[in-house]
This record gives sequence, C-alpha cells and structure tokens, in this order.
Amino acid sequence: MSTTVSPLAPKKFTRMPAVDGVRMVTAEAGIKYKNRTDLLLMVFDEGTEVAGVFTRSKCPSAPVDLCRENLSGGTARVLVVNSGNANAFTGKKGRAATSATAQAAAAAVGCQTSEVFLASTGVIGEPLDAGKFTHLLKDMAGSAEADFWAEAGKAIMTTDTYPKYATATVRLGDANVTINGIAKGAGMIAPDMATMLSFVVTDAPISASALQEMLSAGTKGTFNAVTVDSDTSTSDTLLLFATGAAARNGAQKITDARDPRLMQFRRALNRILKNLALQVVRDGEGARKQVEVTVTGAKSARSAKKVALSIANSPLVKTAVAGEDANWGRVVMAVGKAGEPADRDLLSIWFGDIRVAREGERDPDYSEDATSDYMKRDEIAIRVDLGLGRGKATVWTCDLTKAYVEINGDYRS
Amino acid sequence: MSTTVSPLAPKKFTRMPAVDGVRMVTAEAGIKYKNRTDLLLMVFDEGTEVAGVFTRSKCPSAPVDLCRENLSGGTARVLVVNSGNANAFTGKKGRAATSATAQAAAAAVGCQTSEVFLASTGVIGEPLDAGKFTHLLKDMAGSAEADFWAEAGKAIMTTDTYPKYATATVRLGDANVTINGIAKGAGMIAPDMATMLSFVVTDAPISASALQEMLSAGTKGTFNAVTVDSDTSTSDTLLLFATGAAARNGAQKITDARDPRLMQFRRALNRILKNLALQVVRDGEGARKQVEVTVTGAKSARSAKKVALSIANSPLVKTAVAGEDANWGRVVMAVGKAGEPADRDLLSIWFGDIRVAREGERDPDYSEDATSDYMKRDEIAIRVDLGLGRGKATVWTCDLTKAYVEINGDYRS
Repeated sequence: MSTTVSPLAPKKFTRMPAVDGVRMVTAEAGIKYKNRTDLLLMVFDEGTEVAGVFTRSKCPSAPVDLCRENLSGGTARVLVVNSGNANAFTGKKGRAATSATAQAAAAAVGCQTSEVFLASTGVIGEPLDAGKFTHLLKDMAGSAEADFWAEAGKAIMTTDTYPKYATATVRLGDANVTINGIAKGAGMIAPDMATMLSFVVTDAPISASALQEMLSAGTKGTFNAVTVDSDTSTSDTLLLFATGAAARNGAQKITDARDPRLMQFRRALNRILKNLALQVVRDGEGARKQVEVTVTGAKSARSAKKVALSIANSPLVKTAVAGEDANWGRVVMAVGKAGEPADRDLLSIWFGDIRVAREGERDPDYSEDATSDYMKRDEIAIRVDLGLGRGKATVWTCDLTKAYVEINGDYRS
Repeated sequence: MSTTVSPLAPKKFTRMPAVDGVRMVTAEAGIKYKNRTDLLLMVFDEGTEVAGVFTRSKCPSAPVDLCRENLSGGTARVLVVNSGNANAFTGKKGRAATSATAQAAAAAVGCQTSEVFLASTGVIGEPLDAGKFTHLLKDMAGSAEADFWAEAGKAIMTTDTYPKYATATVRLGDANVTINGIAKGAGMIAPDMATMLSFVVTDAPISASALQEMLSAGTKGTFNAVTVDSDTSTSDTLLLFATGAAARNGAQKITDARDPRLMQFRRALNRILKNLALQVVRDGEGARKQVEVTVTGAKSARSAKKVALSIANSPLVKTAVAGEDANWGRVVMAVGKAGEPADRDLLSIWFGDIRVAREGERDPDYSEDATSDYMKRDEIAIRVDLGLGRGKATVWTCDLTKAYVEINGDYRS
C-alpha cells in the first residue's frame, strides 16, 4: 500500500521454499484495493493439523470467532484471507459473511466447514461483501501451487511497506522438515486498519495439541512481546498448520510437545515467530528505529515484562528515541508508572553498553557524547536493572515519530 | 516557557482575590531559566491545616517523599515551590536538597521543619542545587503579600503555555469563605519535564482530616480523570491548605467531612479541581482539541473508568481526533483492549449527539457529513454505552498531534 518502504526493511529478500502438503493462490477480488491482489487461498492436504493464537480483545472480529470455534476440531483443509476489510464490528452481517465464505471454501476443496479457517484485515465497521469473492474460490482451489509464498505474503498486506517472510529447515528425528511463515503489519496500522496476521506452515507431522502447546509458549516472547503503540487489534490471528507431508520422507508423527525430538523444531519455530514479529515492529507506522527493552532484576518474569511494556509503550520514551535523546529520566518515569515493585535508589539504566544511571542517580562516568553517538543507530537497546530479584523480560517496539501521527491522523481539515 | 499559547487557553483572565491567612512572594533564583521567576514561597498563618494527594509512581521525587512525611502532622506554615528542576531520581543528593530547603524555610518563617511543604518541577535526574535559593527565603518571607496570586501562578510554570487559576467564594455556615487554586501543566510536559503541581488555599476553618477526605474524593473525578499521554509523573502534587482565617468573620470550625454545612464548599472545591484539571489538559503538549470520553452501561463505575481511560489513552483514537475523523472503529478497538466486560453486539457509540454505531454495527442513520462538521469543533465528546449495567465514568484528554512529537522528540539529529 505504501509507496515508501520503511528504512528498517530487510536488506535482502528471503527466498521461500515450497512446503509439502500446502498449495496456494491469490486473486484480485477488488474488495477495496485496485490493481493488487487482496485474496489468498491456502489449500492443505488431508490430515493437516492446526493451532492458533488470537487477539485478547473483548470485541474480536467475526473471522476470529470462527477460527476459535473451528480450532477445537484440530484439523484444517483451507485458509481464506482477505485484505481491505477486517469484517470487525459488523454485527450479524459479519457472521453471515464468515458463514458464506466458509461454505464456499468447503465446497471448493471438498471438506467440512469446520476445517475452514478465515482471516480478514482492513477497514473496521464496514460490512464485508463476501459475494465479491466466494464465487472465485472453486477456480482458485484448482489452480493453487506449492511455490507461491512470495505472492501469498503480498496479498495479505494492508499498509505494510514490505511483505514479511521467514523460513527454516531443520531435522525432525531422521527427516528434514521445513517451516515457512508470512505476516502482515502490527495491529494498529494506518487509518482504519487494525490487524496483525501471521500464518506459519510446516510439513512436519505434529499433532494439533502439541502444535498448540509450542505455539502458545512461543508467542509469549515473540508476537506477545512486541508493541507499536499499545493499541490492540480486534483481529490479531496467528495460525500454525502442520501438513504432516514429511511423513512420506520418513518423519515420525509426534503427539507430545515435550518429545525430545522436537528440540530443533521448537527452536526454529521460535526463531521464525521472533523474526516475523520483529519485521512487524520494524514496519510500525512511521518507525525509524527498532527499540529493544530488557528489564532484569525484577521480582518475577511477569513483573519484568509489565515494566518492559510500560517503557516500550511510553509516548515520552518513544518520542525521545525518535529524537535520538538518551532521556533516562523518562525511563525512570515509565518504571515508576508500571505499578510493579521498584525501588528508585536501586535502579540502573543502560543505553546499549553505556550505563547512564546507577543506584537512583546519574552515573558519574556517563558521557553525553558517547550516548549521543549510540542514539544515532537504527537499533537501540534500553536495559533497566531493578535490583530486586531475578525476573527478566525483553520486548520490542519502534520509535514514535511525526510520521506516525501523519499516517494515523487523517488530517481532513 | 512557550512562546505560542495553546489555542485552548481560557479566553479571559481570572482575577484572583486575596485569601485571608496566606501571603506569597516569588523570586528569580536562576535555577535553570533566565529572566523569569522560578521560586514561589507561600507563608501561612499559624493554625493552617493541610491535605495532599500525590503521584502513584513507584519512583517519586524527593519533595513528594517529604510532603508525604509531613502530611501526617496535618499543619502547614510554609510552601516552597521551584521550577526548572524536579529533584527527581537524584538519590541521596535529592534528600539533602529537600532537607536543606526545609530547614531554611522553617528558619525563615519560624516554624518546625515538619510544617514545611515542598514541590519541584523541571528536569529529572539533575541534582537540585538548593544553595541557589535557600539564602533568599528569609527576605522573601518578610516581603510576602496577600494579593499576589497572578505572580504565583506564573512562577511555577515550566512548559505550560499559560498560567492556570481558579477561584470561588461560597457560604460556609454564616460566613463567606474563598477558595483559590493554581496549577501547572499535566505531567508529561515537554523535554525532561514531568510534573503536575496544584496548590489550593482557602480561609475556611476546616480540619486536616476533613480536608483530606474531601480532597481525595474530589480528585477522583477531576485530576485523576485527566490524561495527556498516559505517562505518569514522578512528582505530581496537589496540596489543599485551609488557613482558618475566616473564623475571624464568624465561620465556625468544621472537623467532619460529612458536616452538612460543607455542601457549598465541597461543590466549589470540586469545581475548582475540575477547572484546573481541564486547564491542564487543554494545555497538553500540542493539544488542539479537548476530548471528553464518557462510558455508560458498564458493569461498575470502576470498569467504566478503565474503559474510558483506554479510549482516552489510545494513540489511534487521539490521532483520529487530531485528524477530525470520527473513527469509531478505533473506539471499538480501545473498548476491546481495556480487558473489561464488554459485548461487541451491545455497543453503541456517539460523537457529540450523533450516534455512529449501535448494537455492534454502524448506525443506519449515520451521516458522514454531520459528523465531519462536528469533528471540526474545539471540544469533542465521545460517548460509549456498553449496554451491560449502570456503571459510568467521564475522563478528559486532548488530541495527539504532530506538535506533541515535535515538542517531546528532541530531534537532535
């Protein structure tokens, strides 16, 4: 959508291999955008298992409701994603649209409606006219291809400035398995857009329950540890599909998330989730810098994460980073407002490797010049030690620039 | 500090009458600013009682620590306020500075150090050199005047674009009593500044405990119901002093906050607190519009306030208001992320008197033109009915503009 690519975009293109057991296809359905694809269909082999993590919003979109419901079955045959309209806050019309789409998709691939998964991203509050694309699904299913990931990543974009890909191939027991993931922008993107979507597919034969356990655990330190502006989408959806096709190459079925054979797989999955989550942050609206916030010495990991998010969500910290100002006073402020145990006189704060404050005062060795140089970088690390315990957490965000306000304030006047 | 006065500043000047029992004086101590006053001394008659409400930050400033300690005595003889340095996150040096100031102030007016109250506002993390002004206090105390409120309001400003005053004269039993209040900018103001200060003085003879009860209750719907950017200062201080001097005009001493004779006084106090709190919001950094957010139909008043603050603190809602865009989808998002009970399909949303959504969908009668006209106003009201219960709450904020980022992002590069 955007003509200017984020300065934090990946420097090189990620070549995505095919993943056995999934084929995909995109179309220009004209839901809202012109001259670009806005519809993605993924068709999975029989026996594909699925896990998912969704927004915590109390006002989720209609497709989120449908995915939650179908997830209990544990199997997936088809995923339909549209961009341009989020089908959120659309009342009964929203449910009618998901129902019509699920029926058309099930008929197109010959499966139960309970094996259909849906995601929509775009404008909130506008009814989604499923009639614009339900008639396309049958033909699309027929022409789906395995080597189509690059196009899939593009069709789900809204105001993202670049498509987001990650891939890994690892050993699972005696066989190689592949994990591919795509994502689109961090919730809170641009006018009326409010959705983070990510779809990860592997050919590994892993049961839905084991997938769910790994996905839920893996989300904590990745997708649930990034924030652009603290605003939570109605539509956030992360789905993990396992086609099981690698069984044909000798991979053995795994049904327990604690199975030691999953060690490499789990690491690769977490790496992919983190990679995609960071790409989302780096494409935050108006982002010019990536900010990593680490809190150590908290009473607990939960407490550390709360303090870290308080820092990462603080408009004053984020504007200071935008201004390349190592403003540790604002970091203290954000620690103080988190409401978690903290003792002013035990606090230490670093920007990168430079300690700017210790024991509740400015570090006597602090050099303004060295810090100013550090703040010019693209990637800024802020570390706070609370000096109270062993709890730690890391979260990621971006800076808050005038471009954020420009993108999100429609400025009609 | 600022050369451009907020477009939301009061249109006419508030003439502040004297309050019997308090005299004040200001000075140019050169703490940070040049060519302006930065020190305020208020001297109270013997018998003055005091109440206070402070920041909830876990990392409060040294003056907040001192005020909290002295509040237990219930009596006040002198208040010293400096601007230019917040004496926050200054470690042992911070406590040494408050201690030296308290001793000098007590000697200047002839009272106990436990009857001294202090507030500092300005840069965080820089040691405050109390030696710049402790030697001035004795002479200042000698030249303090009753009719000096206009100057008092100016000396405490940091990046405020206008001084903030409010006054009321009401009946207390058979006598007239006066309440005067001044305030300075909403926490979170401009580079390194992070303090909301307000001082309210009355000549009414009211006990410290009754004052405290009224002040704590009055703060809930006023100073604790405004937000500029969700960031919480290390230094927020609101003090209420009652000199009791009106007893000379026949006002009777009141020691119980539930005393029916306090009815008019309590209303006037709440009006003053609200007036000052709204002036603070209207002087929020870069503010172009005041936003009132009312949530009704919540499960409880507490729940309503949490949802209202979630809306008022949402960067996406605030940028939409800046852009004069009645973006109710973002209001739904903010309701959803609050984590409080909410049912998408029962939500109704108004901008002013215009209902834009009902029962979880866009209102069929919604007119984009009428709403666009409404959004051009200086004061925007957003109302959300959750349709679940009888809990309600109102909070106030301002819009989020590019000027906010400009003021808070140092943009050194």
